Amino acid sequence: MVAVHEKVRFVETDAMGVVHHSNYFRWFEMGRVEFLRQAGISLNELIAEGILFPITNVECKYRASAKFDDHILIETLPAELTAVKMIFNYKIMREADGLLLATGQTQNVFTNMQGKIIKLPTDYVNKLKAVSS
Amino acid sequence: MVAVHEKVRFVETDAMGVVHHSNYFRWFEMGRVEFLRQAGISLNELIAEGILFPITNVECKYRASAKFDDHILIETLPAELTAVKMIFNYKIMREADGLLLATGQTQNVFTNMQGKIIKLPTDYVNKLKAVSS
Amino acid sequence: MVAVHEKVRFVETDAMGVVHHSNYFRWFEMGRVEFLRQAGISLNELIAEGILFPITNVECKYRASAKFDDHILIETLPAELTAVKMIFNYKIMREADGLLLATGQTQNVFTNMQGKIIKLPTDYVNKLKAVSS
Amino acid sequence: MVAVHEKVRFVETDAMGVVHHSNYFRWFEMGRVEFLRQAGISLNELIAEGILFPITNVECKYRASAKFDDHILIETLPAELTAVKMIFNYKIMREADGLLLATGQTQNVFTNMQGKIIKLPTDYVNKLKAVSS
Repeated sequence: MVAVHEKVRFVETDAMGVVHHSNYFRWFEMGRVEFLRQAGISLNELIAEGILFPITNVECKYRASAKFDDHILIETLPAELTAVKMIFNYKIMREADGLLLATGQTQNVFTNMQGKIIKLPTDYVNKLKAVSS
Repeated sequence: MVAVHEKVRFVETDAMGVVHHSNYFRWFEMGRVEFLRQAGISLNELIAEGILFPITNVECKYRASAKFDDHILIETLPAELTAVKMIFNYKIMREADGLLLATGQTQNVFTNMQGKIIKLPTDYVNKLKAVSS
Repeated sequence: MVAVHEKVRFVETDAMGVVHHSNYFRWFEMGRVEFLRQAGISLNELIAEGILFPITNVECKYRASAKFDDHILIETLPAELTAVKMIFNYKIMREADGLLLATGQTQNVFTNMQGKIIKLPTDYVNKLKAVSS
Repeated sequence: MVAVHEKVRFVETDAMGVVHHSNYFRWFEMGRVEFLRQAGISLNELIAEGILFPITNVECKYRASAKFDDHILIETLPAELTAVKMIFNYKIMREADGLLLATGQTQNVFTNMQGKIIKLPTDYVNKLKAVSS
């Protein structure tokens, strides 16, 4: 599990006075990026090598509303990490009291610059598995 | 089914050269808002009456990448419209050739300004059902 | 002058109940993109040719708040269009009553993919000038 | 001067491979919010008291492009803090080498919930001045 700590930005709120639901996927992404960093994988490096990592499926269940200025904890857990896909589970918690705000899941695949599905090179797969084990 | 036509904004793209996945939920929202408008329901009016409509669940499957300047079609179909929840299904298509870009689902519930679950007043439920039938 | 018509999205609002100020630059961009389209210039085509168009200066004065569901008119006027820069002025108006919401200005320059300043090829400059004259 | 440290999010990039210019105003806002926090002023508290703080003018000069995963430093300096307006200046720097990425300025005024200009209560003005002196 990889933890990321963030603070809710004013721009992330909407006219209902709470965080707009689309922003949780941006938080999940921050958790995923940090997980990859801890595996020694930089997205910039992947793109430079011609490897893209489009999202194919996402879901989120919202339990309570994040509010402006909340400190939040983003927990990222690997569910399936192979040469053809990365599935991660997420929890978003309010730091002040540990209240669970949302849970979610995302799936990425790997493609070349033309959008054709490819396998992630073994070296990267091994790095991913080293973190998750 | 309610149709909304949009054009992909440059700001909606990311460094992979395609639309960032979080934006599809913003497009779904535009479809949902238009569905409600056709039902004679304005979100501004709901908020003014102290009725909020937080999202509780969302999911999206991405089939192909929307790109900058694509004309897209957002189709919104009601799945369940009651006094306690609204579930909508969505399709996003590329207008140029009808290519299916994504499908998704969202669920809203209704609360008062303090976040307590409430039932949507019958008058509004009837308006919603009138569109969907 | 090039006109673009938009409708304010719910996600563009913030907890003050009005549109977040950063979104006006996204609207200016939509006006600028449309101006270029009317000049026969596609940003996708520029990028494909290795020409980038980074923003170097922006400013905006806000006169009145755009609100969710407002229909807005984005007017884009060229101020200086040369091989080394594009300066545009903008007005955002509320369609319902013509109320001026904001005015602004942006400046783009042109670079290659490595970020080095370049001159826009004459063919493109001529296309730009044809619209503005 | 108040310093905020941030990391560039993937979603903040666009198809030119760098951060979209509109995001710098979201970073300025994070600096401003932190300045107010250090003054003992919470935006949630202001809103709860019926005090809004709309932006009336902004500008930004971009010197170099922020890129995904850059660590950035947001410096916020008060320029004019009175009962009728707050003007702040900003610098955004890349942490790795101190490169100046952008400078900017914003002006807020104060209004009641109906959008009418008001004076910020003296207690708040004093708190602001205590930080800036």
